[in-house]
This record gives sequence, C-alpha cells and structure tokens, in this order.
Amino acid sequence: MAKELKNFTKRSDNYSQWYNELVIKADLAEQSAVRGCMVIKPYGYAIWEKMQRVLDDMFKATGVQNAYFPLLIPKSFLCREAEHVEGFAKECAVVTHYRLKNDPDGKGVVVDPEARLEEELIVRPTSETIIWGTYKNWIHSYRDLPLLINQWANVMRWEMRTRMFLRTSEFLWQEGHCAHATAEESEARTVEMINIYADFAENYMAMPVIKGVKSPNERFAGAVNTYTIEAMMQDGKALQSGTSHNLGQNFAKAFDVTFINKENQPEYVWANSWGMSTRMMGALIMTHSDDNGLVLPPRLAPLQVVIVPIYKDAEGLEKISEKVAPIVENLRKRGISVKYDDADNRRPGFKFADYELKGVPVRLALGARDLDNGTVEIMRRDTLEKETVSLEGIEDRIAALLDDIQTNLFAKALALREAKTVKVDTYEEFKEKIEEGGFILAHWDGTPETEEKIKAETKATIRCIPLEGDPEPGVCMVTGKPSERRVIFARSY
Amino acid sequence: MAKELKNFTKRSDNYSQWYNELVIKADLAEQSAVRGCMVIKPYGYAIWEKMQRVLDDMFKATGVQNAYFPLLIPKSFLCREAEHVEGFAKECAVVTHYRLKNDPDGKGVVVDPEARLEEELIVRPTSETIIWGTYKNWIHSYRDLPLLINQWANVMRWEMRTRMFLRTSEFLWQEGHCAHATAEESEARTVEMINIYADFAENYMAMPVIKGVKSPNERFAGAVNTYTIEAMMQDGKALQSGTSHNLGQNFAKAFDVTFINKENQPEYVWANSWGMSTRMMGALIMTHSDDNGLVLPPRLAPLQVVIVPIYKDAEGLEKISEKVAPIVENLRKRGISVKYDDADNRRPGFKFADYELKGVPVRLALGARDLDNGTVEIMRRDTLEKETVSLEGIEDRIAALLDDIQTNLFAKALALREAKTVKVDTYEEFKEKIEEGGFILAHWDGTPETEEKIKAETKATIRCIPLEGDPEPGVCMVTGKPSERRVIFARSY
Repeated sequence: MAKELKNFTKRSDNYSQWYNELVIKADLAEQSAVRGCMVIKPYGYAIWEKMQRVLDDMFKATGVQNAYFPLLIPKSFLCREAEHVEGFAKECAVVTHYRLKNDPDGKGVVVDPEARLEEELIVRPTSETIIWGTYKNWIHSYRDLPLLINQWANVMRWEMRTRMFLRTSEFLWQEGHCAHATAEESEARTVEMINIYADFAENYMAMPVIKGVKSPNERFAGAVNTYTIEAMMQDGKALQSGTSHNLGQNFAKAFDVTFINKENQPEYVWANSWGMSTRMMGALIMTHSDDNGLVLPPRLAPLQVVIVPIYKDAEGLEKISEKVAPIVENLRKRGISVKYDDADNRRPGFKFADYELKGVPVRLALGARDLDNGTVEIMRRDTLEKETVSLEGIEDRIAALLDDIQTNLFAKALALREAKTVKVDTYEEFKEKIEEGGFILAHWDGTPETEEKIKAETKATIRCIPLEGDPEPGVCMVTGKPSERRVIFARSY
Repeated sequence: MAKELKNFTKRSDNYSQWYNELVIKADLAEQSAVRGCMVIKPYGYAIWEKMQRVLDDMFKATGVQNAYFPLLIPKSFLCREAEHVEGFAKECAVVTHYRLKNDPDGKGVVVDPEARLEEELIVRPTSETIIWGTYKNWIHSYRDLPLLINQWANVMRWEMRTRMFLRTSEFLWQEGHCAHATAEESEARTVEMINIYADFAENYMAMPVIKGVKSPNERFAGAVNTYTIEAMMQDGKALQSGTSHNLGQNFAKAFDVTFINKENQPEYVWANSWGMSTRMMGALIMTHSDDNGLVLPPRLAPLQVVIVPIYKDAEGLEKISEKVAPIVENLRKRGISVKYDDADNRRPGFKFADYELKGVPVRLALGARDLDNGTVEIMRRDTLEKETVSLEGIEDRIAALLDDIQTNLFAKALALREAKTVKVDTYEEFKEKIEEGGFILAHWDGTPETEEKIKAETKATIRCIPLEGDPEPGVCMVTGKPSERRVIFARSY
C-alpha cells in the first residue's frame, strides 16, 4: 500500500509526466468532464486558499479594496481597445442564447432558437473592458482618484493545449485594476504590485524570481509596459509567475474615462492592471517537489506538522495520546497547524508515505520506547532527514525547523537557478546551451524581428529585461547591433 | 451637501424604491452594462466578505472542505435528473461557440461559425450535476464517505425581472454538496446545515428566522425534502434566506454513483446540498435599514466605529489626534475595526451624514470642549441616540455598546415580525389579512392543488411548515380537510 503511493514517474525519466501524475497522486486536481477545465480538489484548494489569504492581506495593506464585476462581457466592449481585441479576445467562450427547451423530437433539451441574444456575451478572459466601462461612471474628479480595486474571479480562455494549473481553459485568479490621476502615480503602482508579487513568490512560495520588463512581443495586449516576475522550474524552463501592466491611457481613451484634474482641465485617467492565478499552484509544485511527492513551503502548507503514534494496543495508544495532547495544544497556540493522526485503519508506514506525498513539512513519530526515553522522531520533508530528539522544548524545535525548511527551500531553488543560468555571447553557443534548459543571459538588439527569429529557430523567448543588476553593454548575438544590457532568454511554460 | 446624502425615498412612501435607491446611495452595488447583472462595489463587497468569512469558518468547524468545480456544464448533464432539468435548467446562459474572428465586412469581431461546440455548455445555474458527475470517480467504498464539500462560486440564472442582490442573473454564493453512506446521516447533515444558516442569520445578521420545511410545490427541483429559513422584511414580505436540500439518492442514481457499504453490498450514495447567496445582502438591508440609510449589525459591519474630530485649526486637530491615537490602538487590540476620519476636505456634518448612510454602528465626535472636559460624544446608529460621556473607560463602553446594538437590532426585528404575524382560520379573513402584509399562520390540507389555488387568488405562498413550536391540529381554511399544524403563508421576495 505505502509503496503504491510512491509508484509514479520520476523527474529524471520524464519531468512533464512526473508533474501530471503528481497533481493527481497528491489529490490536488483532476480533469473535469468539460474540455480543458479542471476540478480543484480539497487539498489543492486549501493551498490556493492560503495563497489567496496572504495576497489579499498584502493588497489590502496598500489600500486596495475588493469588488466584483460581471462574468459576461458584451462582445462590443472587447473591440473598443484595438490592440486588446487583437491580442486577446479571439479564443473565448461565447454565450449566444439564454434558454433551453424540451427537445420536441424526443428526450433531453435543446437550445431554444427563439432565445437568441441580440448581442453575444463573452465569458471574461480578463476584465479590463467591463471594468473600464464601469469606471466611466465612478470617476469625475481627481478627488475620485486613485481607485484601487481588486477582484477574485474565474476567467476563461479557450486554450488549445491545456495542463492542470499551468494552462486551463477556466482558471481562478485575482485581477487588480487601478485608476490614477497621473502617469507617474500609475507607473509607481504598477511597480509596487510587481514588488508585492516578488515578495509573495520569494517569502511565501520560497520561489526565487527575477523581476523585469517584458519585450514588446510579450507585452499584455493593450499595455504600454508589462512588468513580470519569472521563475525557473526544476527542469530549467521559465514560468511567468505574475504580471503588472502599465496601461497608460489606452483603456481610458477606449472607454472615454476622463476626470477634471487639479488644474480644472479634463484629462484621460491613467490605468494599470495586475494579476496572479492558480498557475502559481503549478509553479509551487514544480519548484520544490521531488520523486516522493509534494514538497510544500511551511508558510503555504495547509497542514504544517503531523504526529503519528506507533502503538501495539489501545493502552499503548492512550499513553502516547496523553503525551501528545499538550504538544498539539501548544503548537496551535503558536498558530502552527498540526494534526494528530491516530486513525487505526491505516498503518504508520502508509501514513508516512501519504504525508510525504502530500508534502507536510514536518512529521513526528512517537512510540512506546520514545515515551520511556522522553524522545520523539522528527522528520523534515524537504531533506527527508530523520532525527530522534528530546520531547523537552519540542515546540521551539518545531517552530525553528519550519523556519529553516522555508529558508532552505528558497536557497535550494536559488542555487539551482544559479547553476542553470549562463552568459552566452554567440548565437551558435546560444543554440547549443538552450537545449540544456535554463536561463541564458545574452545581448539582444531590442527589435521584435530579432526576437521572433530567435523564437522561431530555438523556441526560446525573452522572459524579461531584468530590473536589477548592473547593466553591461554589448552587442546583439544575432545582428551585432549594440545592446544596453543582457536580457533573459529561456524556453517557458 | 450633507442633506443631499439623505435625499432619497422614505420607506413609508415606497418601500421598494427606498431599497433600490439605498443600494445605490450607500455605494453597495449598481446595475452593470450586462442585463440583470450587477457590479458589487467595494463597500458592498466588504460586507459580503465578512459574511463569507463567518460562514466559511462555521462550515469548516463541522468538517467541510472547500473545492472548485467547472463554471460550464455540458448540456447533457442537466438532463440526467429528470425533475432537476424540468424545474431548473431552462432559463440559462448557453455557450455555443469558442472563438471570435475579425468581422470580414468591417470593424469589430463576429462569432466564428466554424468554432461551434459539438455539445453546448451551460453556465452553471447550480452545480449538482457537474459535481455528482465528478463524485462518481471519488466514491467507491463507505470508507470514502462522508464527503463534505463546499464551493464559493458565481452562478447564473436568466431571470426576467431582476433587483440588485435580491434577484440577479449572475450572483455569488456558496453551495455545499455532501455525500453520505446512509439516509439518516444525510438527513442529519441537511438539518445541521439549516441550523447553521439559522445561527448565522440570527447571531450575525441579527435577523430572526423561522426554520421549516418547504411544501412540495416550493421544493428544490430534484430534492426529496427542502429545509428553509424564512425571514420577514420590514414591509411584511417574506424572504427565503437559506435552503438545505435532502436529495435522497436522486442524483446518485442519475449519475450512477454507488459505493460498497459495510455489508459489502453496492448501494447508491445519499446526498444533500445547501446554499446561501449574495441575496443575504438584500435581506440584511431590508431587515434593519431606515430612512437615514443603512443600519448594519456590528458583527458584519466592515467599519464598526468611526471617530470624527471637530476642530478649528491645525493646532486644535493635533490635540484631538493625540487624545484619539491610544483609543484607536486599544480598540484595534480588541479586534474592533475603527477609523479616525481627520480628512480636511469634508465638514463634520457631511461626515456624520455619510457614516449614517453607510450604517457604521458607532460614531464618536470629539471637539476642543470635550478635550477640556475629558468627554466625547457617542452616537449609536440603530437608534440615532447621542450621549456625551467620559473618555475614561471609553473602550469598554464602545465594546458594550456594539454588543447592545447587535442585540437590539435582533430584538427590534423580532418584535416587528411578531407584530406582523397573525393566526387566521377562514379563507375570507386570509384574503383580507394578506393585503396588510406579514406572516399568516393558517391551516392547509397538505395538497399542491389547494396551495396553487391560494397562490393564484392571493399571490401568497406557503413559506414553510415550521419545525418548531407545538403543532396545533385543525381544518384547512379552504377545503375544510384536516390539517396537522398551521403553516406560514406570506407574499415573498
């Protein structure tokens, strides 16, 4: 039984298959009956809830408020911002009718042809259009600004090839939509949000990210500038993990949203939008997990500590339970989530394997001999190291260990990224290195043409133009034209 | 300015219009560009978030876990449970295509006729079908049961006549879907959830409710039995506030969900579902609010206390601010949400009116004279009573006042309900009394025919057959046939 739990593909054999199987094995999600849409199972959803709570608190601490806008967007709204519709709105779910009727020819129901909508409605792929259509009535004067609003919502993009969490037709996300009186203020908020995403990724997900700017080819449709955080998965591929878009006045112009500024002049409003999605579940899994299953950073683990009693009979269990009760209570008082698993229908070995599969950061095992010795076996999921330690001060030890695991996971991921990041100066070398996976720092002449050529020939894209680090001038590896700084190339999810 | 805030219809002039205007004035929600769909504005959403948090905690305390199922449901799923599709699935948003394309005849986009779905997808009006289609793979043995799952989601029903919060095409809700090994256990869970809803309504919303069972006519489509909580609004109309459905084995049979029971025999799974929605925002408003605006029970108020300084100059403000700072800190330490509104672009009179409109339960006002006297003016929103009290121990006084407001709102609503509830024994008297609004306790012979006749002739429906109170036998006011107990009739939202 315990072995069966771990019977799935190894990363080194097939990373992609390992991921797909792990999502199922760890009970995170599964495909639904609807093409490209997943069911997020309770354990997966519990991790997502933790992410939501942390992000929501971070947003609110900067003055953002939540609201809710309609799921369906009139088709005409999508066309208002020309680049937006061009880049975005084609592959989407279209509502054309509003009624079913009994099938006159037999069983079941059919679409009622008389209930055709005058204008089709689109299931939101993102909400800039409906929100800016609404803001028109909310914003009149500079006194109404800034407007700092976020929504937690489901969105839908009719993806051709889907993978659970990473790319699904329906997904869950938050989308922030801010309105400002000045370009500077809007730019500052755009940057503030990418910094919040980086903080969340690094300090909660324990996932190092590189902050940067997207090249024009990779920019959000309708944006003046897109900031991104890019993470490296264990297979060396990049995963875009959060984006923040400076929309300039594009949407304000498309929806005619003006305000009277302090100089008493009408002016178009300045906008930004920013989002993070259930894709982060995929990023979390692919950054830390191993061939035994999930590895969760303690700060996002729904269950941080599990205690498994090893006993022969009811009397033995009772003695262990008595010893464990105050430990559980003390851990809960510290805000540590803990489960004492005394279920008698599964053997300890099965429990161990199952909690490893689920990525519970710390496991304690306590048997009769431990009671005699005043000890307990403690295992950390990240390294699988076991140690027998004194029960004295066990709560302090656990708290410190959780911190240490959090730190260690980040350090390990960072070390991997550094090991898999190379500087390359010639296109020849680039073509060679890109096959090995990882990030490549190379010079690029800044043109979409060169980027497209590289993408067509190597499947690598510019992940971002990094915000941090000293710019080092050079020449484009493809065209030899001057380049101000190296950019990051990678193949990506 | 301050007067303008209160310039809206009075309840006694037109209750329905008062409601519509208040929703807008208090900045809770507004109509969107999409027919029948609303935008929930930040202040309205903040109240909904409070409701969500309380309910979510209550559910989890009973072992319920959250999950997420697809937005779109294949059309064929809806037809599986015969009564369900008959009663439910006709008026709904139908997705027929998955792509738009540039209009070949000009500007904009059109639906791509080549991207027609083989099977239409329905935006979920409720999720029993997709969820039971999924449970089939999750449930094999009695060891997999019970399955206690809830989802927070948006749903859509194409309503002909909509009113904000009360009846909108898209609304937000939670829907619980439990699976059990025995009929008894499922029935117990169905009742447990209606009790939780009643607890939430009475102890958080301060809204008294009557727990009962729906008559067959008013039962959920596909349910064996529907439990409901019914509240009375200030105009005497009933509002169904939460329902819990015992689904028997109907959905298990429709989706072929069986399990191996303890006797090693295959058996269909027993089901229940239960939901509460943003409709509760409407109930909250209509239960407590008055001609000055919203009145919010402290336990659901996003802002519980506001402090307004009354000052002549910067120096005066500074002195007040110094005095207020520790009070704010102490209140926050107690978990009381408080705002010190020292904004200088609005006059105190405007602030007072605005916070009254928004239903903030307690307002403090502090001027120079108060500083000299060590006093503060305190106003409670429910009664609008003002009092000048000592600053000494002000935190204790505020905490006690918040409790008192919570209790008082419930008592007031209960007194209204009692005053507007009458026992009636003849159909003549019934027809007279129903025009006055309120609940009518009357005898009914238990047949759908009699209920339909009463509804057709008086627009009143049976709100519920009460669970509590001593049953008093009698004879049906319409047919004279025997009746075991009085049931509750009312006109309803």
